[in-house]
Amino acid sequence: MKNIITISRQFGSGGREIGEKAAAKLGYKYYDKEIIEKLAEKTGLAKEYIRKAGEYAPSKSMFSYAFIARNRDGTSITDYLYRVQRELVLEIADEGPCVIVGRCADYILRERGDCLNVFIRGALDSKIERVTKLYSVSADKAKKIIKDADKKRSINYKYCAEREWGVMKNYDICLCSTALGIEKCVDLICAAAK
Amino acid sequence: MKNIITISRQFGSGGREIGEKAAAKLGYKYYDKEIIEKLAEKTGLAKEYIRKAGEYAPSKSMFSYAFIARNRDGTSITDYLYRVQRELVLEIADEGPCVIVGRCADYILRERGDCLNVFIRGALDSKIERVTKLYSVSADKAKKIIKDADKKRSINYKYCAEREWGVMKNYDICLCSTALGIEKCVDLICAAAK
Repeated sequence: MKNIITISRQFGSGGREIGEKAAAKLGYKYYDKEIIEKLAEKTGLAKEYIRKAGEYAPSKSMFSYAFIARNRDGTSITDYLYRVQRELVLEIADEGPCVIVGRCADYILRERGDCLNVFIRGALDSKIERVTKLYSVSADKAKKIIKDADKKRSINYKYCAEREWGVMKNYDICLCSTALGIEKCVDLICAAAK
Repeated sequence: MKNIITISRQFGSGGREIGEKAAAKLGYKYYDKEIIEKLAEKTGLAKEYIRKAGEYAPSKSMFSYAFIARNRDGTSITDYLYRVQRELVLEIADEGPCVIVGRCADYILRERGDCLNVFIRGALDSKIERVTKLYSVSADKAKKIIKDADKKRSINYKYCAEREWGVMKNYDICLCSTALGIEKCVDLICAAAK
């Protein structure tokens, strides 16, 4: 029995919807925006900043890194936020069965034996279709949003977890939502958790 | 409904056992060694040669490529074998529901809409454990066998399919047999196919 399910996902793959539905089906708590709200409470940082920080590259070069915002004690805001986020994810996992979307939860909880780490990907065309509908943008704009978001997730994960995002070996189960469909992904995750 | 299931797998991950059990559970035909036998009939090549060729790097450099065995009409044996293998896999898929292990079947059948492409991986320690038991070898020897076999599969796939082996984007579902266990992998593949 896997008590904790972490969902990492490509932008536009439906990973959030899949996570939410899996949590509902399993009777697990669901954490996504709730984590951002809790982090805002704990850190005093704005929700929008935290939301973006989760998908933001803290530094694209050693040069720019020197100029990122720092706390009074010298740690960067990125490092500070990750430290608080890490503590929060550990606390949440201790509270009981849950589904956690994003936030490097797979890495943060890597030492627990009751974690199922899931990655949801999709074909580019279907991700574009999903994003154009959800955000009312053109296909070209959707493509750019997807590319940018995944790049930022990848760099943020690499920075915090010091390993590669979206690489098979870091997950227990990787599903293509285009080939399988949202409902089938939900069913497979629930079956894998049981 | 997915009529064809292709299984690609890391050496020692139990992918073959999982494929065989999934085929039995679904009532699908199972192809693994059967393909080697059929290829031997069709090509006149030795079974052992064909078995190794599926996991063998046809060329590691452009230089060595110039010296690989060639047929009378000038095609290399590797290219010839792949051509016959491709025809055979297409024929098998046309005959009815089946599970095909290895042989670049995921790539060969990429234009069919009723294919479920699965990749089975495992943690190195559990692959070593499996290989030491199955082949009665030391852990060090098992580690070397695993590394070599996967390297050869990877290069062979790259040569024939012109894309990367073991990379998430080429599969609909990727499972870690260490985290999930053999039986759970079987169940998930059957559920995904239905």
